[in-house]
Amino acid sequence: MERKIENVKQRASLRDIAAETGVSIATVSRVLNDHVNVAQRTRDLVLQAVERRKQDVVASRTRTVYVRCPYVLTDYFGLIVSSIAEALKLHGLRMLLDAGESGQHSAALRGLTGQADVDGAILILPPEESAELVALSRAGHPFVVVDPRILPLPDIASVSAAHFAGARAVADHLIGLGHRDIAVIAGPEEWLAGDARLAGHRASLAKAGVLLTPDRLRHVEPTVAHGARAAAELLDLEPRPTAIVCFNDKVAVGTLQAARERGLRVPEDLSVAGFDDIDLAEATNPRLTTVRQPLQEMGSIAVTQLMRMLDGHEPEALHIELATTLVVRDSTAAL
Amino acid sequence: MERKIENVKQRASLRDIAAETGVSIATVSRVLNDHVNVAQRTRDLVLQAVERRKQDVVASRTRTVYVRCPYVLTDYFGLIVSSIAEALKLHGLRMLLDAGESGQHSAALRGLTGQADVDGAILILPPEESAELVALSRAGHPFVVVDPRILPLPDIASVSAAHFAGARAVADHLIGLGHRDIAVIAGPEEWLAGDARLAGHRASLAKAGVLLTPDRLRHVEPTVAHGARAAAELLDLEPRPTAIVCFNDKVAVGTLQAARERGLRVPEDLSVAGFDDIDLAEATNPRLTTVRQPLQEMGSIAVTQLMRMLDGHEPEALHIELATTLVVRDSTAAL
Repeated sequence: MERKIENVKQRASLRDIAAETGVSIATVSRVLNDHVNVAQRTRDLVLQAVERRKQDVVASRTRTVYVRCPYVLTDYFGLIVSSIAEALKLHGLRMLLDAGESGQHSAALRGLTGQADVDGAILILPPEESAELVALSRAGHPFVVVDPRILPLPDIASVSAAHFAGARAVADHLIGLGHRDIAVIAGPEEWLAGDARLAGHRASLAKAGVLLTPDRLRHVEPTVAHGARAAAELLDLEPRPTAIVCFNDKVAVGTLQAARERGLRVPEDLSVAGFDDIDLAEATNPRLTTVRQPLQEMGSIAVTQLMRMLDGHEPEALHIELATTLVVRDSTAAL
Repeated sequence: MERKIENVKQRASLRDIAAETGVSIATVSRVLNDHVNVAQRTRDLVLQAVERRKQDVVASRTRTVYVRCPYVLTDYFGLIVSSIAEALKLHGLRMLLDAGESGQHSAALRGLTGQADVDGAILILPPEESAELVALSRAGHPFVVVDPRILPLPDIASVSAAHFAGARAVADHLIGLGHRDIAVIAGPEEWLAGDARLAGHRASLAKAGVLLTPDRLRHVEPTVAHGARAAAELLDLEPRPTAIVCFNDKVAVGTLQAARERGLRVPEDLSVAGFDDIDLAEATNPRLTTVRQPLQEMGSIAVTQLMRMLDGHEPEALHIELATTLVVRDSTAAL
């Protein structure tokens, strides 16, 4: 298969080499077939052009990018990987994908360092410690981190959503509707996204003169079940919060379930907001007010960053944050 | 990097070769380093063992499987790709993934035929005509089709869910609840899944003495919006159907929305059932009665099939259908 492609390329390039050297196609062919009746100068000219062309072909062989997403490819992760796949294809790169939760337990970054035919990597929400990623970078492996779990990552290119600004926007929206007793179901404390979104919520509340008290704050794994459990606790508080902002849409779905179990109407008795704007957010009743992440752009910018590095350039900016959009639907209302 | 791995392997195999030939490790090392003071018979013995080992190493080099899923990796497709990824990793194979909707327009199966380092392929719901797949198979490219869009695929290994049986089970469930006026929002007519599920619905109804009339049947693209539109038409019929079975969960979500817009309560005024059991099915209110597809098993069986083919065996069975499970939740109730 490879040989056939090479032959096609060689036939095509006879003409190019002739054009480049000013020698006839027949003469180029004679040189390539080792005929003797060609002047040495012409022979050198053609062979040099062929050599340059060979180097071009090597430089333009299909590059392969190792993409690791050690999570099940649903919702958020599925959309991120899809957008990276589309962007890589657009640039003629191949994607070697390592996906699924078992990837969290495999030898760290083995896939990137153990494969000679891998040119670079994109790591999505990598579970590794910062130091491990820094070591990999210093070892000269070009890679970009999408949605870093932790910061700072010195000298490592990364792309993420503007968690802080998005979270502040959704809390501002609730404040604007008159809510003051706003509870927060935040993500894991040690995650960048969890920390940054909570900071956004806090900043918005503080500006309105409200301090988030510990009884109004829960940290959970971002699943429907954990969200429902945390929401149940918050909804049993006296006085009951009038709004709950959630780490993501799944947590918000759990919150809707907990509200329903208590006979509370959303948004009449309780406003609920999510984050991410995955499919779930429009399947619920009421449909979720949430924050849309720019997943398409994250994928394509990560690929652009990596391509610059593969071509030997510095990335345009080391840490890129992409703007989010507040999407107001039916789960939030004026107090 | 590749060289380093090879060296490690060579050191490890000194011991194995010594054990295999009954020669000391030191002697094996002397042979490999071209020392002269080794008997010719011993030298031959060792070199033959080394040769066998080399062939084993070639046979066990990391195989690469091209997986094509020309759809956005959410829900159903994300889960299928995740399960294939896990199964390939478990067997030490690499996955070259071509994902995203643009893959539907790219030169058909180019990824499989144009890459010399690809050992085999798994094609998920391939959009190609049957004849194209057959030609690919006859050209000697080993591949397995997951969730074929069309049948028959002569001589092509495929894995799919038991669409017919699953659809019959969900219709039987509604019949058992006393429903007789059951409308169907089916998938595209030309899809195997659409055709087989509709046949399952029809068979169940017919057994209960009910013929599905054309006014109670819609064919749609399987999205929330198309589902909502078709459901709106069905719910405006006189008399109104008491139940709607949907091609998949997204169509069912659309149906719930159409019912809500008309002030109809589910399941009191209308029973609704989906298919797939994706995350959406538990986020709705009420949660959806649906049919769970064995996505984990589909991925791992597809990989097992392909591995048999790569090892030169026939697949164990050409067309494998995996059982589905009826999941009864809150969107269906007795008439």
